[in-house]
Amino acid sequence: MMATLQAIKYNDGQLEILDQLLLPESCTFIPICKVEDAWAAIREMKVRGAPAIAIVGCLSLAVELRKLAVPESKEELCRMVKEKLDYLVTSRPTAVNMQLAAESCVQLCARLSDNTLLSVAEAKGDIVKHLEARLANDVADNRAIGEHGACDITKKNATKDKLRIMTHCNTGSLATAGYGTALGVIRSLHAASKLDQVYCTETRPYNQGSRLTAFELVYEKIPATLVCDSMAAAAMREFKMDAVVVGADRVAANGDTANKIGTYQLAVLAKSHDVLFYVAAPFSSIDFQIPNGHSIPIEERPHSEMTHTGSTRTAAAGINCWNPGFDVTPAELITGGIITEKGVFKPDQLAPHQ
Amino acid sequence: MMATLQAIKYNDGQLEILDQLLLPESCTFIPICKVEDAWAAIREMKVRGAPAIAIVGCLSLAVELRKLAVPESKEELCRMVKEKLDYLVTSRPTAVNMQLAAESCVQLCARLSDNTLLSVAEAKGDIVKHLEARLANDVADNRAIGEHGACDITKKNATKDKLRIMTHCNTGSLATAGYGTALGVIRSLHAASKLDQVYCTETRPYNQGSRLTAFELVYEKIPATLVCDSMAAAAMREFKMDAVVVGADRVAANGDTANKIGTYQLAVLAKSHDVLFYVAAPFSSIDFQIPNGHSIPIEERPHSEMTHTGSTRTAAAGINCWNPGFDVTPAELITGGIITEKGVFKPDQLAPHQ
Repeated sequence: MMATLQAIKYNDGQLEILDQLLLPESCTFIPICKVEDAWAAIREMKVRGAPAIAIVGCLSLAVELRKLAVPESKEELCRMVKEKLDYLVTSRPTAVNMQLAAESCVQLCARLSDNTLLSVAEAKGDIVKHLEARLANDVADNRAIGEHGACDITKKNATKDKLRIMTHCNTGSLATAGYGTALGVIRSLHAASKLDQVYCTETRPYNQGSRLTAFELVYEKIPATLVCDSMAAAAMREFKMDAVVVGADRVAANGDTANKIGTYQLAVLAKSHDVLFYVAAPFSSIDFQIPNGHSIPIEERPHSEMTHTGSTRTAAAGINCWNPGFDVTPAELITGGIITEKGVFKPDQLAPHQ
Repeated sequence: MMATLQAIKYNDGQLEILDQLLLPESCTFIPICKVEDAWAAIREMKVRGAPAIAIVGCLSLAVELRKLAVPESKEELCRMVKEKLDYLVTSRPTAVNMQLAAESCVQLCARLSDNTLLSVAEAKGDIVKHLEARLANDVADNRAIGEHGACDITKKNATKDKLRIMTHCNTGSLATAGYGTALGVIRSLHAASKLDQVYCTETRPYNQGSRLTAFELVYEKIPATLVCDSMAAAAMREFKMDAVVVGADRVAANGDTANKIGTYQLAVLAKSHDVLFYVAAPFSSIDFQIPNGHSIPIEERPHSEMTHTGSTRTAAAGINCWNPGFDVTPAELITGGIITEKGVFKPDQLAPHQ
């Protein structure tokens, strides 16, 4: 199979990311030299997708730490690391991955501080290694997600030779370290010659589907058709979809899933059309600290995303807008299951596997 | 109440229409001097909306007939009229109004031909009057639709002081001779101080909601919020919508309704959220010749509507698209009823009132 797009390039303390705001017009990489660069790139959506946000955040800190002179003490080192991680977490509130990554790194710091045999320089090296490991781990997790998902969907549609899958937003190489979550499942189906066609939604107002997912699908020659968000039900009825597979920004302990606005709607429509609905997400997107979706913060985004395309006004001047970035899909609508790197689980069966 | 927008101006054989392609940037009227002008304006969507298409088509023929020297015979007159009407019907295949208007005019021609007491000049005058009458008739029908709809929705939500209504596409002054169908219902609710908020969808890919409906709502100071098509379910859940009201391009004898793509999806979502779903349409949009929605032709529109905004490419190059202009909502999902100028009917109770 052709190599997938690589949107995050990291080599020996040098980090570059593909500026997704310039897609599909231009493929331009920008350097990320410090955590402030990462924070701004995340906030401005030059990089997006819950896993990718955490990876770029962590790698930006690794870049800084590699350049940093060894601090006086481990306490000073850990205080600085924690401060920068806290700052990175504020870049996008709905996705949990950066928060979980920060917590895991803070726990490592505590262990390193407690270990009196380690020097400050060694502790710093261990933190850098821990941060850098996310990139390779995420790709491995995604490949496992792809395999588990493709296998489950194929099994549940055993009478069919080729499958029609709908997806939303972008969950591919542009949202992760590579390969993708929901799009990873689609890649795996395609690699196994089980994919008839993928239908990707535009994903208004930010057009992650038409700009990014369509770009990846064309790039990798995966048979694909773009539909407007308003066409999902008509497409399910017309083309007899076999499954809808989406990603997640945060999954609650009970399986309720926050994902790109429009996901809830697709889940309702899938249910009424007897189409299996799957969420594909690594365990790093699952927040066992919150019992259900009610406590997931939903980011509201600027109205200009809806009223303008670039600098061109596309909506009537003076109109009020509602622009939530995400919505929460209740666990009971996730009829196919939650596809993780450890297998496919019913939404209420995640906890034993954490 | 403030005068509503007037998008079709007709006075003594002079016809001008508001070029909707230039909205919301500019309010420019263009002259329609012959049926070819009308055909092109309809095809290019300078004018749209099933009722407005028929009115502009008919008036363009009236303009021509007024300028025409009296033909040799009534046969020649009627042959010419029929030819031009047949041509106008081809401008947009899904909407039925132009076709029904053409049939009604051809029937008039037959009656005029049979009437040996009438001169050719008198017959020509009668045809012009018949064509011109549509404008005033349509406004009167819309006002009746508005009153019937507002009354029914208010009655079915009797415990509520103010109502939240969702609508799709544009069905207002820009889609009709004035006032509007679904938007007429909303205007009437607002005039009766019963409207809390109207939620209008963007209506991708042509943005009739964000460009046109939003324009009308801002113009008339009706409290309104724009949502993306992907946000409909989230908005129904979040804001506790009381009704969804949409227009129709063609209603079949059993109540199945072809309307702007995305309507079917809203009807499914309304049903799962226990929200009443209404279609507002004059009897001139009801096609009693076809038993159900399966035989309504669905126009496929150019992919460029989805891949470009103006001349700017917004979707990845090379991506395949599916761009049906309309979809069919089965009668059983029209839970509120079909709002007509003669009252609100259950979808299966239209025929006795035709």
